[in-house]
Amino acid sequence: MNIKTIEWLGDSVCLIDQKKLPLKKIYVKCSNYKQVAEAIRSMQIRGAPAIGVAAAFGIALGGLKTKTEDKQKFISEIKKISEFIAKTRPTAVNLFWAVRRMNDLVIKNSGHPVPFLKKLLVAEAIKIYDEDIAINEKIGKYGAVLIKNNDTILTHCNAGALATAGYGTALGVIRKAHSEGKKIKVFVDETRPFMQGARLTAWELKEEGIPHVLITDNMAGYFMKKGMINGVIVGADRIAVNGDTANKIGTYSVAVLAKEHKIPFYVAAPLSTIDISIPDGSHIPIEERNPREVTHIMGKQIPPDGTVILNPAFDVTPHKYISAIITEKGIIRPPFKRSILAQFS
Amino acid sequence: MNIKTIEWLGDSVCLIDQKKLPLKKIYVKCSNYKQVAEAIRSMQIRGAPAIGVAAAFGIALGGLKTKTEDKQKFISEIKKISEFIAKTRPTAVNLFWAVRRMNDLVIKNSGHPVPFLKKLLVAEAIKIYDEDIAINEKIGKYGAVLIKNNDTILTHCNAGALATAGYGTALGVIRKAHSEGKKIKVFVDETRPFMQGARLTAWELKEEGIPHVLITDNMAGYFMKKGMINGVIVGADRIAVNGDTANKIGTYSVAVLAKEHKIPFYVAAPLSTIDISIPDGSHIPIEERNPREVTHIMGKQIPPDGTVILNPAFDVTPHKYISAIITEKGIIRPPFKRSILAQFS
Repeated sequence: MNIKTIEWLGDSVCLIDQKKLPLKKIYVKCSNYKQVAEAIRSMQIRGAPAIGVAAAFGIALGGLKTKTEDKQKFISEIKKISEFIAKTRPTAVNLFWAVRRMNDLVIKNSGHPVPFLKKLLVAEAIKIYDEDIAINEKIGKYGAVLIKNNDTILTHCNAGALATAGYGTALGVIRKAHSEGKKIKVFVDETRPFMQGARLTAWELKEEGIPHVLITDNMAGYFMKKGMINGVIVGADRIAVNGDTANKIGTYSVAVLAKEHKIPFYVAAPLSTIDISIPDGSHIPIEERNPREVTHIMGKQIPPDGTVILNPAFDVTPHKYISAIITEKGIIRPPFKRSILAQFS
Repeated sequence: MNIKTIEWLGDSVCLIDQKKLPLKKIYVKCSNYKQVAEAIRSMQIRGAPAIGVAAAFGIALGGLKTKTEDKQKFISEIKKISEFIAKTRPTAVNLFWAVRRMNDLVIKNSGHPVPFLKKLLVAEAIKIYDEDIAINEKIGKYGAVLIKNNDTILTHCNAGALATAGYGTALGVIRKAHSEGKKIKVFVDETRPFMQGARLTAWELKEEGIPHVLITDNMAGYFMKKGMINGVIVGADRIAVNGDTANKIGTYSVAVLAKEHKIPFYVAAPLSTIDISIPDGSHIPIEERNPREVTHIMGKQIPPDGTVILNPAFDVTPHKYISAIITEKGIIRPPFKRSILAQFS
């Protein structure tokens, strides 16, 4: 893909506006951390790993532009910036993971002067960015083993290069299988209300030349019943220690359908998406977003004025529906709790 | 509701353009049968019972405007008109039921002169219209028994007054329960790609003052899992003799989700929707509609140029997922084949 999801420009952060893709390719330049936070909040950048990278860049940028030479003031400024960025979205744990990593770094190096801390933060954010691409390539390598020649794989939302620093998690697996010469076809759920499937996944697959077909979310069951889908791969926003997985709204329905049709259901995510502090999915906060995302499409109103809307952005798929979780350390199979804790030890 | 779905005006047929609702209320006047056929094909009028009524009005209109006084020529003209109208949409069996009823009438009365046959056809079409409203009220009465006070019912697509001559099938049941004073709430699936839920069902419920909330199709599983939905009622486009039910795409996924959450799943439809000539759902032709319905919303393009689309307009829910079928003769429970045949004897 010849478009970068997000990029560090030395004194600013550049990202492609994912609300406008694929018909308009508009780059957003964030010159301060508040603009980065707003880009996350408004979903100009989205996808758990990409949000983590953006948060790290935001903190690095905020640190860089901080004027104080006083170390204690600087550290408390970083804390304030971090809290501001952490408030943007509640579900994807990669955001909090990146924020903590950046803060831990400053605290661990608090013996050094401010200019050094600034450089450290920038270097760490770039490291998180670089690591993310390397991690996705590993996920792709491990996951591709699960995909056979002539498979047709359904994916929901976008867990591709646009959801990460590059390459992608679920789409990284598909990319890798395709690059290995496997003949595969992808069913893309359009993924209402934000249309990540129709706008982002269809576009990434087109750019890669991977055969795909776009369907509305409510068609997945129909094609599973016809025997036209033989695997599902999705990304994740937060995984509990027992394997329960929060991902884009609609993922749970796809998982139930996959179980009913005896189709394997795979989750692809970096270890930074696993939240070992929570025992199960009931502890994952589900973001409720603006009703306008449901009522208006490309600025056009669909339902009558005043219609009451519910707009949960994520759902939790209980681990019993998940065949395997693919991470950069390998494929995790049930029982998930034991396997997940083993990866963290 | 103060808007009529379709109306016979003596020398033309008037219908509300359901592609434009709810933000624009535009009436379409059809002065000949080809315009009626086009209104069915383009989904300006939709919903199995409403299509049946429109087909009958179309044939009556076509007959009325036929110039020949020759009886044999008239009968063969009616046959030609009927075949033209029957070609508009393949799935809803009410269309073919109405066409056959109108043709049988002409053949049975072929001893009479042409002016009399014309009057007969108009009277029969109006009778089909009137019967449809009466049938829906009976469906409502029988079905309302299944709805308890404080129930929250999910419905998919629009099986309301707009899908029929008036009152509605699935929404007729909800209307009736509401009018009996039961406190109910409705979850409305938006129903991509045509948005019948967001545009039509939400509007009907608003007009009736029935509390409702609009969700995207992929949210149904989430709210079922949260215990916020305790019943599903949908309409039908064709029911096989074993109870397998074709309805708007996405219905099957809702049925699988309902089963997984042990929520009753009801189908409400007139007997004219039951096709006793087919043993099961595999014999129901599924209409594949224009990809543009998926790629463009209110004229705005969503996915990249050239994206391959599949757009089946219906799916078949196997009878094992259906708790009961509500018709104008009562509630049909499994085993469906025996119960259905009993209603036809």
